[in-house]
Parts: sequence; C-alpha cells; structure tokens
Amino acid sequence: MFTRRTMIAAGPAVAASAGLAQAQSPTPAPAAATAAAGQAPGFYRYKVGDAEVTAVNEGFFSRPLDGFVRNAELADVKKAATDAFLPDTALPIPFTTSVVKLGGKTILIDTGFGDNGPPTSGRWMANFRAAGFDPAKVDAVVISHFHADHISGLRLKDGTAQFPNAEVMVPEAEWAFWMDDAKMAAAPDAAKPAFANVRRVFGPIAKDVKRYDAGKEIMPGLTSVAAYGHTPGHTAHMLSSGGKNLMLVADIANHPALFVRNPTWSAVFDQIPDMARDTRIKMLDMAASERAQVVFYHAPFPATGHIAKEGAGFRFVPVQWTPAV
Amino acid sequence: MFTRRTMIAAGPAVAASAGLAQAQSPTPAPAAATAAAGQAPGFYRYKVGDAEVTAVNEGFFSRPLDGFVRNAELADVKKAATDAFLPDTALPIPFTTSVVKLGGKTILIDTGFGDNGPPTSGRWMANFRAAGFDPAKVDAVVISHFHADHISGLRLKDGTAQFPNAEVMVPEAEWAFWMDDAKMAAAPDAAKPAFANVRRVFGPIAKDVKRYDAGKEIMPGLTSVAAYGHTPGHTAHMLSSGGKNLMLVADIANHPALFVRNPTWSAVFDQIPDMARDTRIKMLDMAASERAQVVFYHAPFPATGHIAKEGAGFRFVPVQWTPAV
Repeated sequence: MFTRRTMIAAGPAVAASAGLAQAQSPTPAPAAATAAAGQAPGFYRYKVGDAEVTAVNEGFFSRPLDGFVRNAELADVKKAATDAFLPDTALPIPFTTSVVKLGGKTILIDTGFGDNGPPTSGRWMANFRAAGFDPAKVDAVVISHFHADHISGLRLKDGTAQFPNAEVMVPEAEWAFWMDDAKMAAAPDAAKPAFANVRRVFGPIAKDVKRYDAGKEIMPGLTSVAAYGHTPGHTAHMLSSGGKNLMLVADIANHPALFVRNPTWSAVFDQIPDMARDTRIKMLDMAASERAQVVFYHAPFPATGHIAKEGAGFRFVPVQWTPAV
Repeated sequence: MFTRRTMIAAGPAVAASAGLAQAQSPTPAPAAATAAAGQAPGFYRYKVGDAEVTAVNEGFFSRPLDGFVRNAELADVKKAATDAFLPDTALPIPFTTSVVKLGGKTILIDTGFGDNGPPTSGRWMANFRAAGFDPAKVDAVVISHFHADHISGLRLKDGTAQFPNAEVMVPEAEWAFWMDDAKMAAAPDAAKPAFANVRRVFGPIAKDVKRYDAGKEIMPGLTSVAAYGHTPGHTAHMLSSGGKNLMLVADIANHPALFVRNPTWSAVFDQIPDMARDTRIKMLDMAASERAQVVFYHAPFPATGHIAKEGAGFRFVPVQWTPAV
C-alpha cells in the first residue's frame, strides 16, 4: 500500500512499488451539478479537406455491464473494461454528434437526445452554441438511424422543432421499418416506446422528411453507406472533400473498448445481431486496411480516430487533440 | 483507390475496400491563424480525491523525427509514429501544465513557455483564463525541471513576472546544477542558452525561490519524487487526496507514442540518457503495476491516463473525456 512514508523512504530514486489508488472514477452526476464545476465546453473542430467538422458532445449514460453484451461472459466484459482503465460495473457511454460545414452548408449528423435523455446527457445545445452554431441556421439534419439518442433532439418534449429551417434526411430503409404500423404492432412491449418516439419526432413533419437510399451521394461530398444490422436501416456516411475522406460509422460498434476490441461481441442494442457483427467486422477491417479516419457516435469524445488491427480484434486510436484546426 | 463510384457500386453492404485517404494531418500553424478558426479552449478538469486538477494546454511544437531519438533507426521511429497514426516527418509534441486546487491553494505545476516559445505554442494564458483562473491568484508555482518549456512562462520577455503572488518552488538538485557558473562555462555552446534562460527567469527572484528536496511532502498532499536523468534534478510529483493519488511524471518520457511504447529509446532532450532510461522504465513499470493515473507533460492533451504493459514496452491509455468533473 502506498503511503507518504514509503515514498519518502524510497530516497533519491523512484519509490519501487507505491500502491497508487486509481484516481479516475467517472461516476455519473446530474448535468446541473457538473456544469457548475466548469468543464471545458464539449466541442472539437477538425478539417477534412475543405470541410470543417465539429464534434459536439451531449454527455453520457452509465450503462451497467451486466446484461450489456449478449454473447460474452460478464467476467470477460469486466476484464475488457478494466483493460481500458474504465469502471467495471457501469460503463460511461458518450454521445457525440458531428456538425459538418461543407460547400457553404451546415449539416448536422444525428441530433442527440435534446431534452428527452437521461440526466447525464442534456449538454448538447450548450456545447453546440459554445462552438458558435445557431440551431436556426442548420441547413440539413442527416440521420443515421432511428434510435432515440440519434433522433430525439429533432423535437423537444414540448413539441418544438429544434432545427426549424433544416431539411431532415433519413435512410429510406429505416423509415420503412419504423413507420410500419404492422412492425410496431408485432414488436415486443419493450420495443414499442422506440416506435412511439419515432412517431413523436417525425409525425408532424412526415410529408417533408427526405428519405435517402444507401450508396448515394445525398449532398455534394456526403455519401450514404449501408451499414445494416444495428437497426434494419442503420446507415454510415462518407464525407469527402479536397482528396480527404472521413467515415462516420455511427453505431456499427458501441463503446470501442468493448466492441472494437471484440468485434464479435453483440451489444443488446444491436437489433439484428449477426448482420450487425458482419457489418462491424467488414467496416473495421476496411478502416484498418485503409488507415481511414473514422467517427463513432459512442467513442470517447471527441469520438474520432483510426482503427488498428490487434490480435483477433481491433483497437480504436483516438486522434491527438490539437489547437490547430 | 476510393471513389464515389466504388462506394455506390458496393450496394447494400459495405464497400469492401475503399481507399480512404487519411484525414488527420496535424500540420503546424501560427497561433493567430488557428485561434481565429475557433478550437475549444484547451483545458480539462478532473478530480483526484478532494483535489481538482486542471490540465491547461499551451500548444505544441512540430519536432522533426530525424535526429530526435539517439539510439533508434529513423525507419523505426517513423514506424512508431505511423503505428500511432501520427505524421512520420515531424511529430507534434504538446505542452500541457497542471493546475491543482488543493487545501484552498491554487498550485501551478510548470509554467509553459509564456511568450518565449515557438509560434505554435503561446495559448497557455488564454486557456488558463478560460478555465477561470487568475495568474495573480496563483499561490505556488512548483517546477519539475529547468528546461525552457517548463519555466519560461514565469517571466515574460519584457521581464514581467506572470505569477507575482506565487511562491516559486524548485528542485534543489536542479538549482544546484543550472545555477552553477562552472557548469555553464563547461557546457557545450548549444546548451548555453538553456543556462542563460534559467538566469533570466530566476535571477531577479533568486533569494525568494524556495528549493525543495526529493522525497518530501513539499506542501500538504504534494510529494516530490526524484526522477533524475532527463535533467540532473528532474523531479516528479505525487498528488494525494482523499485516498486517491495522481503521479505527475513530467518528462520521464517525451511523446508516449515513441517513448512509452519504446522505453529504451532516448530523446535528444534527455541529458543523462542511461539514468533517464532507468528512471523511465522504473516509473512506467510502477505505474502499470499499480494502475496509477499519471500525467505526462508531453502526452496528447489532456495529458493524463494510465499505463498498460505491452510487448517489450508500455502503452499510454488516455482517460475518457467526461463532462462530469
């Protein structure tokens, strides 16, 4: 056990074995309490060719590890968390959206929860504004899939549209699944709130929502890429500008410490687990081979980095923070 | 090669092999130009027991890899950078100080360059103020060693003391070396500016500088730890509060992608290379064994994380950013 005495007794060299307790303990705390303590605003800007991307963090949710991975022993899941120096009881899963300025347009990719999320989220609008953005000036909102943490921020609880002047663009395959009343009726009770939330968010603007197919350039420089499995129509996006590319892979993997390191593991959020696994491995392998810069919605903020092959899986290597945008 | 056509042709599954160019390219740029582009302020707050630590970034310096490592082939050094998805010509080496609020005191550990640094540094005071600090209210400045990037900010080029009300605390062994006129006279010409800078910084306050020994609790909760080799008196610090510990290891290793992964490599900045190597390996081994949270001055911002053993070396695992201080 480390004591001040042992450190001092170690003399002019380094204390040989000081039992240093682990200082990091990211426990959940309500947004109001932590905002007062004054963390830096959660945005990070970087360039991809002539495009400027801004990662905007919404907060996190502490997900208990027990029951999180369908096909792995809890002890192995805890070990993966411990190996990443993360808590082995509940894992803080971050939410980070991407704002893309490209060709004079401001494009938001996924919205976060808005005011519909858990108490450890709810920081998105403050961070978005701190980054200099105005929700009324968002030209397009591009949605990857219809899970609540990606779409709820389109509409506040009181019904207000948060991005009143934005064209809303969604995957056709996602729309076809979630807006199908037969699918909703057939869904287990636990899944029905997700269908209801889709209707809450998109119902009032259904006729104006622009549905896009996979494998299309949905606007200049932004191409949709089918990445099905997490949800039936889950879609990734390739941003291309000035000879550079960025692959926004959304939820092909949840927290990288678990699902990039162990790509065969299935999170309970994956709706079609085998398809999600195949998509995950294929895209991670492609990213590793091509040394592509990727963005995961649930990677540690600022949620962008690269993929290295390692053992039977992969490793997410975050970008080095730089003040030089 | 990736083209829009190949991505679209890939159809409903993921494009099998899209030649994604690497988007990240942290090239150096002058402070003025990049500040206008609006990166988030470079500070990050976290708790260690009852203490609050704030990492404050000053910027970076792009160090050419050629000639950087004394005892490794350039090809191997380039490979280490490439493996970390960093540029293989010049490596951006960040500068990050630590501000510790402990027992009612505000303690700054190392100062950065102030206005004496390269054009890609110089952001420290803006970040320090953005974090809510006032240089006039710093109670103590604790110095790890006398290299220019750690001390120059004590005094601006025009002679102004930046922390006029702070007690300045320095390692006795460091003072003994650098303030020795015989050592300065004996030093090679290339080393003389470093001696001159020490005199520029400390000369006007020499009688008030408090010199501390290694292995002492230099103030309640902060213990000095001899970590000699990088410089003759290079000193680490152990912060202890509420049963938690944080090891601030300063420059026992320069950029982790090179010198934590390859702890036998010697940076040209290490003045006593063999001693620096022994200290580095001993402290990294201790940190890994104890799962200690560590702070490196030259790790990617926010410069704090943990050490995992890996192969013949170690891996620096950054903490997961959290808004919950």
